Amino acid sequence: MNTLVAQYLEAWNTTDAAARKAAIARVFTESVGYVDPLVAVTGHDELDAAIAGVHAQFPGWTFTLAGPVDAHHDQVRFTWNLGPVDGPAVVVGFDVAVVENGRIAKVLGFLDKVPDAA
Amino acid sequence: MNTLVAQYLEAWNTTDAAARKAAIARVFTESVGYVDPLVAVTGHDELDAAIAGVHAQFPGWTFTLAGPVDAHHDQVRFTWNLGPVDGPAVVVGFDVAVVENGRIAKVLGFLDKVPDAA
Repeated sequence: MNTLVAQYLEAWNTTDAAARKAAIARVFTESVGYVDPLVAVTGHDELDAAIAGVHAQFPGWTFTLAGPVDAHHDQVRFTWNLGPVDGPAVVVGFDVAVVENGRIAKVLGFLDKVPDAA
Repeated sequence: MNTLVAQYLEAWNTTDAAARKAAIARVFTESVGYVDPLVAVTGHDELDAAIAGVHAQFPGWTFTLAGPVDAHHDQVRFTWNLGPVDGPAVVVGFDVAVVENGRIAKVLGFLDKVPDAA
């Protein structure tokens, strides 16, 4: 499960379009559902567009794991940071993911820290 | 969503068998899936048995909400305490629930504090 979470964050960090498409196919089921406070998407293409949107909005920022990976049965929870490389976390999020046959079928995301409105 | 979470904890706190059955029918979809580190059940009857099992194991203990209810789209997260009435929390848990048409269709539960093994 730790590996899958690492691959999940890696997919979110991939800026090359072709590499990201391959990473998404590896990590997520075809009908994956991803819902966080700002984004609700279904399937590889919509998820890819959502990730591309984050890179467009925050160029150069990366996702990193921000604590332990807590897994049991087919579900896992973990907290992540998003921010400039080697900089402080600007966004802190929390995800619960549900796994089916080794790939993520559902992500239920929440946000613990968001930037103040400009 | 706050009301639904309150009803959820109320269902867990109901010791009378008939009242609990009614509460479960009100709060959960027929095919509800509930998974925490110790229990994985599907449907009203299995969930009812799981709740009855907690009361048998910890008579008189109650579930209380232990923090804010954070909801968006059809999902909600919250932390709860379990312990003697007016006593300290012995167990602390965290749930993400997914709602369909006003009832809970899925609970993804985790534990943040458990008693030391005797």
